[in-house]
Amino acid sequence: MKYRFSDRVLSLKPSAIREIFKYAADPSVISLSAGNPAPEAFPIKEISEISARIFEQRPIDALQYSVTEGYTPLRVQISAYMKEKHNVGRDFDDILITSGAQQVMDLAAKSLCNEGDTGICEAPSFIGSLNTFRSYNAHLRGIPMEQDGMNMAELEKALKEETRVRFIYTIPNFQNPSGITMSMEKRRQLYALAKKYSVLILEDNPYGDLRFRGEHIAPIKSFDEDGLVIYAGTFSKVISPGMRVGYAIAPKQLLQKMIVCKQGEDVHTNIWSQLVCSEFLTNYDFAAHLERMRAIYLKKSTIATDALDKYLGPKITYNPIEGGLFIWCNLPDGIDMQDFCKQAVLRKVCVVPGNAFLTDENDPCQSFRINFSTPTDENLLKGIQILGELANDMIK
Amino acid sequence: MKYRFSDRVLSLKPSAIREIFKYAADPSVISLSAGNPAPEAFPIKEISEISARIFEQRPIDALQYSVTEGYTPLRVQISAYMKEKHNVGRDFDDILITSGAQQVMDLAAKSLCNEGDTGICEAPSFIGSLNTFRSYNAHLRGIPMEQDGMNMAELEKALKEETRVRFIYTIPNFQNPSGITMSMEKRRQLYALAKKYSVLILEDNPYGDLRFRGEHIAPIKSFDEDGLVIYAGTFSKVISPGMRVGYAIAPKQLLQKMIVCKQGEDVHTNIWSQLVCSEFLTNYDFAAHLERMRAIYLKKSTIATDALDKYLGPKITYNPIEGGLFIWCNLPDGIDMQDFCKQAVLRKVCVVPGNAFLTDENDPCQSFRINFSTPTDENLLKGIQILGELANDMIK
Repeated sequence: MKYRFSDRVLSLKPSAIREIFKYAADPSVISLSAGNPAPEAFPIKEISEISARIFEQRPIDALQYSVTEGYTPLRVQISAYMKEKHNVGRDFDDILITSGAQQVMDLAAKSLCNEGDTGICEAPSFIGSLNTFRSYNAHLRGIPMEQDGMNMAELEKALKEETRVRFIYTIPNFQNPSGITMSMEKRRQLYALAKKYSVLILEDNPYGDLRFRGEHIAPIKSFDEDGLVIYAGTFSKVISPGMRVGYAIAPKQLLQKMIVCKQGEDVHTNIWSQLVCSEFLTNYDFAAHLERMRAIYLKKSTIATDALDKYLGPKITYNPIEGGLFIWCNLPDGIDMQDFCKQAVLRKVCVVPGNAFLTDENDPCQSFRINFSTPTDENLLKGIQILGELANDMIK
Repeated sequence: MKYRFSDRVLSLKPSAIREIFKYAADPSVISLSAGNPAPEAFPIKEISEISARIFEQRPIDALQYSVTEGYTPLRVQISAYMKEKHNVGRDFDDILITSGAQQVMDLAAKSLCNEGDTGICEAPSFIGSLNTFRSYNAHLRGIPMEQDGMNMAELEKALKEETRVRFIYTIPNFQNPSGITMSMEKRRQLYALAKKYSVLILEDNPYGDLRFRGEHIAPIKSFDEDGLVIYAGTFSKVISPGMRVGYAIAPKQLLQKMIVCKQGEDVHTNIWSQLVCSEFLTNYDFAAHLERMRAIYLKKSTIATDALDKYLGPKITYNPIEGGLFIWCNLPDGIDMQDFCKQAVLRKVCVVPGNAFLTDENDPCQSFRINFSTPTDENLLKGIQILGELANDMIK
């Protein structure tokens, strides 16, 4: 039979990054291409204890159908935590537990965008979210990133030019892939522009708790008095990504539509994992756990940047980082970035070519992304050393 | 701010059935309105053991990111089981693990339907799936149910009249809500019609393993030599719904699009629950577990039908059942079904008005749905007794 597909999926293809992962699956290859939390950062003992307790004391709660909105105690805990710690959430907001933060992007795009409507994104940006938006046939417009966040003049230009903008998507902290953190000044400007042009902000903050250096900057949602911001949080980077527990804090009116869409997608998020997250927040020292994670990532990132300085500098520069999982490396002009990444694979090191993160993969790009959280310290060092040898051979 | 929504969600509203559930949440109300597995049917001891073993032996496997397609050993196990037991799956097919079978409906509708395309459904049908199709602005056409499945003349009429049919949605075994099982003859006819009109079949089989009476009838997918059938299975009714583990067995070409859509929705299904299902199938006696479940549901359904005969017959008739979780009850003409359900709630018994399951909720309907799996035996009996008293008062 000849199959006919919907217009929205006709142009969808497995992304370039998935091709990369095929190489990375080869155990002889050092992968600096993933985005996984460090295995040593998982709170295994705690989750194991909590899980045993749940099955001893209230197994049915963990196995029966639950409600689409999410496990109520967890919703209450996150709301209180986000209000107290980050001043996130107003009376007009509510919270929805999702199957990872990825689902927030999906539900937001599904609820807001007709086919052809525009989503404004940072350029570069997280490929997973870009693909979600593409899966609803949203038109994507990328705004060039500067060292303190999107170029605001370009953002306003886009808001003027595009007639059907439905949201501005941003990862303000330790952005994936660029590692850039948006300054408070730009957060305020972004909010003002969104308000001026009546456009929603989709604030994706998976790495906010993983700042291992520098000063905390408040989320955009913390000054959302107008109901402009859909805030996406997740436990993927701070407890476990395999659990798939994220959340949206957003105006109730928007959440109502997102809830109906979620009901149609998966009824509710795995309830065992919601109970685990809830108990972790209640009965364990979450702050101490975060401290421990930050120490792990500070150590790993320092290994990476020291090695980058030693083996790749000054030919290859990189964006300074204060948190998150990624380092964005910039090749000098005249070097073919795709070729560099391909040569790296031949030398058994995998990095992600930067154009994978652009709204148009064919746009020129001289950067590649390194992840420092997944590899062992030893492989991280060795991988960067090999990249250094490659740089020496390719860049004269 | 005044929010603007996508066309597809503009008309979506929390369904009537959710209003019912609000009443059902009152602990003084006997709910015959849910669709939950019986709490005593959960394999608590087994899941608890498996989970403890996973966290002892390979915690990272249960907590780290995984692949969108699903946990490979589980995919292999289900494929082998479905091939051996049901002759489901050909070389052109593959399997995708989903976050419940609901996600199969979502991914299929998303991949196949442009807005306004038609999905043909049984009338009545499962409201959750209907709402999923609606969330992509699919046009739904209902085909009246007979005691052995859809009216085939009406089905062919619809296939002739509708120009943009993308799929026929069916629950062939112990259908929710009607309890009806499609005969083998009609399964063959349905397949032949789908082939003749080049339309896909979306075969949803959550209850197939819960036959407690009568002869097994092979799935439509078992004779799919043409790649016409997307088969949806799930562990929700036979292990645990809170885990949200379902699967699609479908032609690879279709699955490829569904996988890209799933990646955008939730990256992958909770991996702990996939490991639990996989270990359950490997290390435990799944067949014996199913036998135990069938015995529970035979007992509960017999309590229900005995009580229906005793307290409601002959005024209220019901569809005979051989499996599943539901009984479809028919009120005599002249009785207002909505009023009957409302009066039942006032007497503290909750059932679902049948029109909730129609493609147009405003179509006439004289039926309501009873669930016998969720309530205790005592409440089941008491609830039906109260419905009997109500019938005596309302139906002269």
